Amino acid sequence: MSRKEFNLEPMVKPKSVAVIGAAREEDKVGHIILQNYINGGYSGRLYAVNRNASGDILNVKTYKSVIDIKDSIDLAVIAIPAQYVPDTLEECGKAHVKTVIVVSGGFAEIGETALQEKIVEIADKYNIAMVGPNCLGVMDPRSRVDTLFLPTYKLSKAQIGGVSFVAQSGAVGSTVLDLISEEGFGLSKFFSYGNAAQVDEVDILNYLMNDKETKVIVMYIEGIKRGKEFIEIAKKVTKVKPVVVLKAGRTAAGVSAAHSHTASLAGSYEAHEAVFRQFGFTIANDVSELIYYAKIFAYEPMPAGGNVAIITNGGGTGVLTADAISSTRNLVLGEFSGGVAKSLRGRMPALVNIRNPLDLAGDADADRYNVAINAVAGDPKIDIILPIVLFQTPGADSRLAEELIKIKQTVNKPMAVISMGSQYTQMHKIMMESGGVPVFDSPGAAATALEGLYKYGVYLKTRK
Amino acid sequence: MSRKEFNLEPMVKPKSVAVIGAAREEDKVGHIILQNYINGGYSGRLYAVNRNASGDILNVKTYKSVIDIKDSIDLAVIAIPAQYVPDTLEECGKAHVKTVIVVSGGFAEIGETALQEKIVEIADKYNIAMVGPNCLGVMDPRSRVDTLFLPTYKLSKAQIGGVSFVAQSGAVGSTVLDLISEEGFGLSKFFSYGNAAQVDEVDILNYLMNDKETKVIVMYIEGIKRGKEFIEIAKKVTKVKPVVVLKAGRTAAGVSAAHSHTASLAGSYEAHEAVFRQFGFTIANDVSELIYYAKIFAYEPMPAGGNVAIITNGGGTGVLTADAISSTRNLVLGEFSGGVAKSLRGRMPALVNIRNPLDLAGDADADRYNVAINAVAGDPKIDIILPIVLFQTPGADSRLAEELIKIKQTVNKPMAVISMGSQYTQMHKIMMESGGVPVFDSPGAAATALEGLYKYGVYLKTRK
Repeated sequence: MSRKEFNLEPMVKPKSVAVIGAAREEDKVGHIILQNYINGGYSGRLYAVNRNASGDILNVKTYKSVIDIKDSIDLAVIAIPAQYVPDTLEECGKAHVKTVIVVSGGFAEIGETALQEKIVEIADKYNIAMVGPNCLGVMDPRSRVDTLFLPTYKLSKAQIGGVSFVAQSGAVGSTVLDLISEEGFGLSKFFSYGNAAQVDEVDILNYLMNDKETKVIVMYIEGIKRGKEFIEIAKKVTKVKPVVVLKAGRTAAGVSAAHSHTASLAGSYEAHEAVFRQFGFTIANDVSELIYYAKIFAYEPMPAGGNVAIITNGGGTGVLTADAISSTRNLVLGEFSGGVAKSLRGRMPALVNIRNPLDLAGDADADRYNVAINAVAGDPKIDIILPIVLFQTPGADSRLAEELIKIKQTVNKPMAVISMGSQYTQMHKIMMESGGVPVFDSPGAAATALEGLYKYGVYLKTRK
Repeated sequence: MSRKEFNLEPMVKPKSVAVIGAAREEDKVGHIILQNYINGGYSGRLYAVNRNASGDILNVKTYKSVIDIKDSIDLAVIAIPAQYVPDTLEECGKAHVKTVIVVSGGFAEIGETALQEKIVEIADKYNIAMVGPNCLGVMDPRSRVDTLFLPTYKLSKAQIGGVSFVAQSGAVGSTVLDLISEEGFGLSKFFSYGNAAQVDEVDILNYLMNDKETKVIVMYIEGIKRGKEFIEIAKKVTKVKPVVVLKAGRTAAGVSAAHSHTASLAGSYEAHEAVFRQFGFTIANDVSELIYYAKIFAYEPMPAGGNVAIITNGGGTGVLTADAISSTRNLVLGEFSGGVAKSLRGRMPALVNIRNPLDLAGDADADRYNVAINAVAGDPKIDIILPIVLFQTPGADSRLAEELIKIKQTVNKPMAVISMGSQYTQMHKIMMESGGVPVFDSPGAAATALEGLYKYGVYLKTRK
């Protein structure tokens, strides 16, 4: 690459953190960030910086300048008014701070491009990797780094997992973070990088590509600044792990809104889409699709083909799922081999018709699902197992959820479950996902996710 | 219509109900149904029928035959094995029972067409309106009629409201019932009509068209048997109230699965779709879309045009919503009149750019939303108000939710809110929907719903 690569490791796994702009006032951003480090149980060395403060803040030792700290600082989080950022960044440079996150707004997004250029210049001069300005920053539930300045009671925190999420927008980022707290797959890293003045999506992709804790990369992008470099990294990253992307600016109104938001030049959506497709990115059209794709990639291996078997305890839902699968371009309902009927003979109620969708009837229980899924999973003509479990029915209960978790451990093919409903269903969804079984809340959601999985599998084969 | 019309009023609002097949065994369907009437607080006269029973069941007076009951029976619910249904139905006829629901399966759906024809013949002979067989039956939270034989702890019950739901499939029906328990709009009537041997979607549509408690009709259909009559009622019903339809059998696989499920001939989806479109039905493609459309019709008046104003506290979500709205065929982002900038002058922070989407910034609170929405709602060039409220941000709280409820009462234009998130957001969603403000969980969902509203409004105008 033409530009130097930044090492983001000290930012994501810092041994020492300085919060610059730390404050006693509870509503100040610098207070919330410091509090998040304390509440989050960050175990590294933590310092507060406030040029007017005397004494400690939140029991954290406080300095007038980062220069005064007699320690090597891996990460400085800067939360002070924009006009003071250049001088503070100079001090960070002199103090040999390795990385900084500038959460402050008031730069290019409101036309202050000169101020933004100035801070990039300083960061470059001192060889500091800088994320921001105008961003929420970074979260890593493993290292307990958390620079988000949002009230914690408003935002449920995600579990530790394998999905990393990169969002240019703090709003989209925090919403997705909150939403995935209800998903079983969990979070590896979160980056909200705002104006992308220096460190941008190319650097972050490069970091996440090599990060062993990251299994799936999910991105929300408004504009790509370094097209050539983006293409270079795009070529490489999808050979290593799946990347899901939601790109703003699909329409003229979206392009215009994106420019006003993060000063991004969204460019031609078609041109971006062509690049994404060429390099095997999975393109989401909405926030909900981001989550469907993240989930399927986090849980499932690549299918050998596109033949889906539907096994259901609700006839109508089986019909709707047959429609949803057949409406995709790449998936079909597989026809069962003779072996399925043979192995199910005498083991299903008389009313059960051995065909796909396989309707086990409204009283199906754990045992019936067990027999049916194992028969279907053994069929070489079936590539993907898609059980529908409606927990409103008499036979569907926690024993069935446990059975599906057990089956999943022995079935060597992708398997996703469709369950729709309120509390009783949600409880079992959480249970199944904790046990390694992804659960989707509609036939359309499952079909979308499985088609994404299939297409990425095809991409990987053609690239190898 | 060529065939007689059935009066379903005694079925939905019965003064007296007999549960035939009532049983002491807790897992028997007849036990669950009787229990549901008792638990639900049904205030009419309730009888149990069991030809082998002596003494009461669940403290309900029990008879060997419906003939023995010295009362006029509005509704008999029949939950006995299929082969005994004809004789029991004869007894119902002799006892002048007005309506019956046959929940038992074992008829045309498994090839027993002769048995099914026989019960239709008996019902017709005695002038009984019969729903079923092979169905869940009817629910009306106002009259507390509930023939569903599903465990109540698995299925959250919907509130009382204006949406009636008609489902050929019990599985789809019970899932939707469970899902709408989390929605503010509430239920008017629920019909699961199974094999539609006698009473079918035409009769039910006719009933709901005239039902004053029903504001919106939502249907899941596998096959339509009486095409000509369906078209006749379709012409009339959408002039009176909106109808949302999810039709199974969009694909060959779906058609085949539907036939195996309720013996329905799904027919050409295109032909059905053409009829639905011609008569202003709103076509849903998934269960989730059924709920989006039900919600928007339950809450909102028709817009005067397709110009949408987006007001947001999250820039990125504003961009995505601009994309979602502009991606529809009928909606656009309206351009604000000069009056908006004028009335907002000096009342917004300096960073707020007066354009659509109107980004109020991440610290927007109730007051800022109030000023902004009122300014935009007064713009004659704006037809639909679409506030995005991300409750993860510092300024969004219960006061803002209350403010939106108040604003809604004065704004004379459709207004829907987009909020995405987990617990804290869900709490405010419930609050806002109880107060009359519909809330959608993604930009795509809101765009889909609002376009449906707009299209139905156009249909109504052209038909008047």
